[in-house]
Amino acid sequence: MKKIVTLGEVMMRLSPPGHSRFFQAGTLEVEYGGSEANVGSGLAFLGNHAIHLTSFPDSEIGEAALGQLKKNGMDVRFAQRYPGRIGIYFLEHGAMQRSSKIIYDRSESVFAKHACQDVDWDQVLEGVDLLHWSGITPALSQCAADFTLEAISQAKHRKIAISADPSFRSNLWKYGKRADEIMPELLKHSTLIIGGIHDFKVCLDLMGSNLDDLTELVFDLFEGLDYIATTHRHSHSSSANDFSATLYSRNTKYDSKKYELTHIVDRVGTGDAFAAGLIHGLLHDYGDRALELGVAAAVFKHSVPGDLLYASLAELNEIIDGDALGKIKR
Amino acid sequence: MKKIVTLGEVMMRLSPPGHSRFFQAGTLEVEYGGSEANVGSGLAFLGNHAIHLTSFPDSEIGEAALGQLKKNGMDVRFAQRYPGRIGIYFLEHGAMQRSSKIIYDRSESVFAKHACQDVDWDQVLEGVDLLHWSGITPALSQCAADFTLEAISQAKHRKIAISADPSFRSNLWKYGKRADEIMPELLKHSTLIIGGIHDFKVCLDLMGSNLDDLTELVFDLFEGLDYIATTHRHSHSSSANDFSATLYSRNTKYDSKKYELTHIVDRVGTGDAFAAGLIHGLLHDYGDRALELGVAAAVFKHSVPGDLLYASLAELNEIIDGDALGKIKR
Amino acid sequence: MKKIVTLGEVMMRLSPPGHSRFFQAGTLEVEYGGSEANVGSGLAFLGNHAIHLTSFPDSEIGEAALGQLKKNGMDVRFAQRYPGRIGIYFLEHGAMQRSSKIIYDRSESVFAKHACQDVDWDQVLEGVDLLHWSGITPALSQCAADFTLEAISQAKHRKIAISADPSFRSNLWKYGKRADEIMPELLKHSTLIIGGIHDFKVCLDLMGSNLDDLTELVFDLFEGLDYIATTHRHSHSSSANDFSATLYSRNTKYDSKKYELTHIVDRVGTGDAFAAGLIHGLLHDYGDRALELGVAAAVFKHSVPGDLLYASLAELNEIIDGDALGKIKR
Amino acid sequence: MKKIVTLGEVMMRLSPPGHSRFFQAGTLEVEYGGSEANVGSGLAFLGNHAIHLTSFPDSEIGEAALGQLKKNGMDVRFAQRYPGRIGIYFLEHGAMQRSSKIIYDRSESVFAKHACQDVDWDQVLEGVDLLHWSGITPALSQCAADFTLEAISQAKHRKIAISADPSFRSNLWKYGKRADEIMPELLKHSTLIIGGIHDFKVCLDLMGSNLDDLTELVFDLFEGLDYIATTHRHSHSSSANDFSATLYSRNTKYDSKKYELTHIVDRVGTGDAFAAGLIHGLLHDYGDRALELGVAAAVFKHSVPGDLLYASLAELNEIIDGDALGKIKR
Amino acid sequence: MKKIVTLGEVMMRLSPPGHSRFFQAGTLEVEYGGSEANVGSGLAFLGNHAIHLTSFPDSEIGEAALGQLKKNGMDVRFAQRYPGRIGIYFLEHGAMQRSSKIIYDRSESVFAKHACQDVDWDQVLEGVDLLHWSGITPALSQCAADFTLEAISQAKHRKIAISADPSFRSNLWKYGKRADEIMPELLKHSTLIIGGIHDFKVCLDLMGSNLDDLTELVFDLFEGLDYIATTHRHSHSSSANDFSATLYSRNTKYDSKKYELTHIVDRVGTGDAFAAGLIHGLLHDYGDRALELGVAAAVFKHSVPGDLLYASLAELNEIIDGDALGKIKR
Amino acid sequence: MKKIVTLGEVMMRLSPPGHSRFFQAGTLEVEYGGSEANVGSGLAFLGNHAIHLTSFPDSEIGEAALGQLKKNGMDVRFAQRYPGRIGIYFLEHGAMQRSSKIIYDRSESVFAKHACQDVDWDQVLEGVDLLHWSGITPALSQCAADFTLEAISQAKHRKIAISADPSFRSNLWKYGKRADEIMPELLKHSTLIIGGIHDFKVCLDLMGSNLDDLTELVFDLFEGLDYIATTHRHSHSSSANDFSATLYSRNTKYDSKKYELTHIVDRVGTGDAFAAGLIHGLLHDYGDRALELGVAAAVFKHSVPGDLLYASLAELNEIIDGDALGKIKR
Repeated sequence: MKKIVTLGEVMMRLSPPGHSRFFQAGTLEVEYGGSEANVGSGLAFLGNHAIHLTSFPDSEIGEAALGQLKKNGMDVRFAQRYPGRIGIYFLEHGAMQRSSKIIYDRSESVFAKHACQDVDWDQVLEGVDLLHWSGITPALSQCAADFTLEAISQAKHRKIAISADPSFRSNLWKYGKRADEIMPELLKHSTLIIGGIHDFKVCLDLMGSNLDDLTELVFDLFEGLDYIATTHRHSHSSSANDFSATLYSRNTKYDSKKYELTHIVDRVGTGDAFAAGLIHGLLHDYGDRALELGVAAAVFKHSVPGDLLYASLAELNEIIDGDALGKIKR
Repeated sequence: MKKIVTLGEVMMRLSPPGHSRFFQAGTLEVEYGGSEANVGSGLAFLGNHAIHLTSFPDSEIGEAALGQLKKNGMDVRFAQRYPGRIGIYFLEHGAMQRSSKIIYDRSESVFAKHACQDVDWDQVLEGVDLLHWSGITPALSQCAADFTLEAISQAKHRKIAISADPSFRSNLWKYGKRADEIMPELLKHSTLIIGGIHDFKVCLDLMGSNLDDLTELVFDLFEGLDYIATTHRHSHSSSANDFSATLYSRNTKYDSKKYELTHIVDRVGTGDAFAAGLIHGLLHDYGDRALELGVAAAVFKHSVPGDLLYASLAELNEIIDGDALGKIKR
Repeated sequence: MKKIVTLGEVMMRLSPPGHSRFFQAGTLEVEYGGSEANVGSGLAFLGNHAIHLTSFPDSEIGEAALGQLKKNGMDVRFAQRYPGRIGIYFLEHGAMQRSSKIIYDRSESVFAKHACQDVDWDQVLEGVDLLHWSGITPALSQCAADFTLEAISQAKHRKIAISADPSFRSNLWKYGKRADEIMPELLKHSTLIIGGIHDFKVCLDLMGSNLDDLTELVFDLFEGLDYIATTHRHSHSSSANDFSATLYSRNTKYDSKKYELTHIVDRVGTGDAFAAGLIHGLLHDYGDRALELGVAAAVFKHSVPGDLLYASLAELNEIIDGDALGKIKR
Repeated sequence: MKKIVTLGEVMMRLSPPGHSRFFQAGTLEVEYGGSEANVGSGLAFLGNHAIHLTSFPDSEIGEAALGQLKKNGMDVRFAQRYPGRIGIYFLEHGAMQRSSKIIYDRSESVFAKHACQDVDWDQVLEGVDLLHWSGITPALSQCAADFTLEAISQAKHRKIAISADPSFRSNLWKYGKRADEIMPELLKHSTLIIGGIHDFKVCLDLMGSNLDDLTELVFDLFEGLDYIATTHRHSHSSSANDFSATLYSRNTKYDSKKYELTHIVDRVGTGDAFAAGLIHGLLHDYGDRALELGVAAAVFKHSVPGDLLYASLAELNEIIDGDALGKIKR
Repeated sequence: MKKIVTLGEVMMRLSPPGHSRFFQAGTLEVEYGGSEANVGSGLAFLGNHAIHLTSFPDSEIGEAALGQLKKNGMDVRFAQRYPGRIGIYFLEHGAMQRSSKIIYDRSESVFAKHACQDVDWDQVLEGVDLLHWSGITPALSQCAADFTLEAISQAKHRKIAISADPSFRSNLWKYGKRADEIMPELLKHSTLIIGGIHDFKVCLDLMGSNLDDLTELVFDLFEGLDYIATTHRHSHSSSANDFSATLYSRNTKYDSKKYELTHIVDRVGTGDAFAAGLIHGLLHDYGDRALELGVAAAVFKHSVPGDLLYASLAELNEIIDGDALGKIKR
Repeated sequence: MKKIVTLGEVMMRLSPPGHSRFFQAGTLEVEYGGSEANVGSGLAFLGNHAIHLTSFPDSEIGEAALGQLKKNGMDVRFAQRYPGRIGIYFLEHGAMQRSSKIIYDRSESVFAKHACQDVDWDQVLEGVDLLHWSGITPALSQCAADFTLEAISQAKHRKIAISADPSFRSNLWKYGKRADEIMPELLKHSTLIIGGIHDFKVCLDLMGSNLDDLTELVFDLFEGLDYIATTHRHSHSSSANDFSATLYSRNTKYDSKKYELTHIVDRVGTGDAFAAGLIHGLLHDYGDRALELGVAAAVFKHSVPGDLLYASLAELNEIIDGDALGKIKR
């Protein structure tokens, strides 16, 4: 069991049942998640001690969100409460040639306004093996960007490994800063970066259309960086994708198995599942199998509704080893 | 058939099924409404031409809200669309000794930010018999208060009857103005006010603990005012209330029948149902029966889930006349 | 265990969930029943052998209706299949001061058109203790009236007890005959009639506003008649009723306990439950307790959703004896 | 925005949830639609003014059906109300090698009995760009056939474009007329016909097994005809089809892209979606892209539950351009 | 119509809706079934007289299970009731690369403890054409194994055909006996065995990796044996399989068509559906088409949620003949 | 915040939705609870640190049960996992004159078989303010009784307050011991006993029909005992009860307010809610208001579906003070 700290906003996710559209829906399915909390929850399901730093509204809605994180097995002792609103995202599940659609309603949330204040870093980071953050947080507000930087500095200072998912999204970054003004400073202490060509170009102002070249540039830029991981997805439709990933270290490159995903149940959160599986593997010295674990986690997540990777290590290993493919396990 | 214009925000209403709490809910029931749109929808169900002035987000969520108003039979030709968010309210249904709970998340909604811009009042108000507004709208933002005043002035100018529901709510009025700075100017052209002791004290700075006295003061204040209507509710519990109402004109006072309401299904929107029934009755010259119609509408609404008065005139008359009480109509 | 034959139409019942109205409903709850089949099902649940004579559409819908009757424990060996439609009734559950509403869509159903053809009465009525029919069947069509008469004659001929529920409904009887042209001939062989003042006046053209007097007239009219049973319901609202019953024999009159029914779950089918309980009691020589059993069955049925009396004898006896009132039985 | 008039029956659609069969279902999903109203609703969603001519039962059920059409954005001012029943269709969703199944229960519906009476055609057809009808309407009853002819004549007289979907179904046409007695007279004023080989053979008594030849014969027959459109579907299973279409004008033939449809959600109404997309494209001078729009509309509809094309122009264009294939749009 | 007796445990099946996991589920779907009762129910749906011998708890839960079997059309006159518990199995539906999972909670069930006592075999087996049992029953308890042997002996004695599905499951057989101690004695009177390589090896201690060779050995072993049937499944994923079967008689071998199954809805019970179809075909002298009927039944079952083959003969024949593939049947 | 340890079995609760019976149910609502865990969860919701000692199956079902306790805010670090089954209870909600019914299926559960082994009491009980147990645990098995005694001894030894709910249930105590052989030894170290006349008679072999007398005897018996609390419930029906309680100390007796409970939502767990409220009040020195808090907790619980007291202190205080009765709190 390793100890991981994640930080970031937890949103309410509202989605019409099945393949219905909002226009048709008389009920919405509700759960609570966010990229970094999803990574942390996945790590908790895999047996780790996962702490999440965030802020919730001081209301029944905040209580419900907090309840879900507790159920996921996360340690939320350090989560803060403020009067205000929870960020919301509305998700319409695509199917076939129809895309999935996410409508964000997250501005002015308690996390965007307050992030976390007066954190007792000694207590939070005691015995921690890895800090994980994503580029969504610094994109929310100056306050959230400052908090991200503070967390990274505190971890760096304690020689804790740092994993970053740049996750550039153009519809965020509305508070007056550009990603390339903020992200280099945040990324530079990373030991693992999970990102793709677009992230590197936009966040680090790098040139190059080729992942091999770009990763080399990134390794040159950040001397403490041990790994870069990238996922590859080819979408035939909302219901059928191919999925694989590559793990770069300074001298090696490893390509995972490629999975044909048909009959996709829920694609949201699969990147976070990948991160959880990969981080678990790297922290537990799986070598290249760490990447396969990340990919298996992402594959598994596609088959489960909701944001979260409800999976055990045994289940992921069965996918990697192809043992249980489509069998009924009794 | 009369022609009525209502104006105000339309919110998304999210509530856990049955008597569950948010903490327990995996699905939320969703519908769209707001005090003034509820009044207009009730009037449309009763056979009138009801126009609603509001603004919706320019998204699938706005489309869904618009769809509900259309289904209710409202004329939404003049509704506007802006980029942004819809106001939301979270409703937990109480039961027995447990109160119902509403959590508002409506700040920064497209209506609060934009109200309606550049309205073609000649077109909107052509042939209109009555304009209805509530005190919720001017409590949202300066922009919404200005829009309310504009609508009232335009109606007044065209000698259209004006109905007002002051609905003072202390958790609104956050934009820097107090109710008593804004409301007197808005209320002064009303021909009908639907309010209670608290409204008159807070919005009009009147003194007096007695409804008879207060209504006399209000009639003195506003010379065009024909009616004041007030509802009386005694709550034994969330499931059992007594309900009645009084209608004052300058010289008369009429008390409605009093109903014992047990086994309450959904109390939200019952005040709006009262307003719809009363306005219908007054516009169609029902005399005192107008008040009974309003009360019957409120009673009926308590038995139907959701914000809206899905009722026909015939159904309300059956309640007034006690014809169908608890029978199975075949 | 006694053997009972019932006959009549089985309809599809479609109702919006909870207290919703049709206008709001995106799903409808579906089950299959009809007055006489409900009586038979109730008798089957109480441990009797209950045969039902009816006709179903020769389609998946007919198969589903048949499935429900089988599940209820009825013997449907003699049910017939024809191409065509099933009768439907739409039910909106009332609550509080709002009435329940039933919309029939049953004309041209396979049962109304064909009733049952070429019945092998020797086989059907072998060992049968009682035949039960209701006034709904002869009200549907000439064909259904003829079939009712045939069944009664066949039972009479075999000296089988006959129970009749006149159930006069003014919105039936559309095929050119009046109730008082048909019903006297059908009722005259009854050993038990379950009816009220209105039934006797309309079906038998009797005068009198008083049940005691009317029942005396009915006993005078039909010499084989042993019992008349009548239920008494006072509706405070759709959610609260008082309920009791009276059993007349030629020389005696017995009044049941009176129950205050609050928090009514589903009133439909409670008359059929009463009939089932009463018939069970009379067939098993319960004496006056037969009436209490009928009333307890009706009371129990009010607490269960759907048309049917899912109750055991033990459960009904607990109600009569007041043993389990509101306890949690473990 | 164009103005379109559609005419035809609106039915209640009842279907078991998911892939359940009627035998298993305790609830049925309910919505309201019909081929021509589906086309009109699709056109309304795409931003047009769509008027529907039909008749509804004068009951809560009729009110609910009307509500759905209003929600879809249709103009139902001219819809009529009669006492009687709504047509119903029961739909069981197939999957894999199991076919979908539709059981009609539509005879004696208010539309079949009354169609629309005393229509004020000057008012209905004022400013209308196109009238759309289908062969289902004249197949219902003599009255409905007469009404169809009247509508076509009135449109023809006003030089309004006329679109026809012959939709021959052998289980209709039960009132004593054959399709080839009625359809030629109705079809002859069409400017657009959406049909296939079987339609042309049965409705027009034409010979030929080849679509190219048959369309030439049809163009010869009807001199005002501008376009014939045909869809091509190859069913691998209920869950996987190929879909494309061809548009013929007098001198040209255009074949659309072909889509592989896997993971089909709901196939019902896809032909109506095609018609809506195609008509929109033709009315807005899209040229060949009009056909692509029709095909994209059909493709999109396969991914949404229910009868209706809930899609915006932007969403259809994304499918044509392949921009958003399987992406999550944020 | 043939008469078949099946025997075995009926369990409560509890599964989370859709593709949810137990961890996420707030509701569980419930139905009642078991391998042998599933075979019998399938035969009843195909029009046969199917008797099931089993024991149910003497509780509301047992009543509900009994109700389902009745609804399926089974003759349960001989089912017994004992105080105690029902066996339960928890089923989580897999999807894509995620396996389905079954958790059994069936020990100490009333059937495992009592099987059926004091059966009147003359009455049960009168006119019976075939007895069907599976290897699950003798694996439950000594008592259940004894009961299986008794049933087989009684059938053998009356020259009734016997069908056996060895169904070896390693997580059963916990009561102190091994399969190869019990099964040879039970299997030796079979006229039909439905099994695969693994079954023959474990239950009969045979050697050989080749089905052709093994079946020859089995035919040598059991002289009354007429047929051995084996299904072939290749799992690409939980959502996509290939499926076919082979039927061996003493001198012939027949391979069925092979079906590509994509978009699988529910795989559980497909082996039982195969058995039902095959037995129906063999009893009705279908020749090789009996195997195709079995395979079509299995294919059809994959498309329907739940344990049971809700299918008519006509529907299975359409699959065999490829008539209705993916069409909408109206 | 106080620290409390509870111990006992956590069961799966399965109940048909609304007022349906098992016979009708196609889905069951599922949650996880047990008397002592309910008390602990209630204390956690009120802001305390609540540790629960129990054992779960080593399966997905155990994981789900564990997840619920975590969500409730309980500290489950010390919960143990064993191969085996979870105890189940089936609950049918009564209504009106129909009783609720609970069917237990809990024998041979992992907790009954193993209780908790090798507990590190120093760690578990460090800083703990109170240990709470109920008479259900020693009634399950010798092993569970031994574990209860061990826990009590360890707490006693550390001078930790001990609260006991004797909860005598005659359908437990099946393993060969009688309650009065085991309970006196367990009860004698209690500082608080929550019980009634029946408990004292059966568990302690005391005589007397009067609560005042019996409590005096109990105080005489157990010298460390500070409080005895008893609840009073009068059941008018399953939907309407009266509820109050009495708190005895050695010299005082305090009677709570009495509440009329109508429209009961879910009665199960209300005794546990009472215990949670009372214990919270006593631990936080509320004096007599501790009893009012317990009663308010029980009252509140009646209005919420499920086993658990999802309530905050503020909500309970509102009930005690009558502030919010039936209001909509905004």
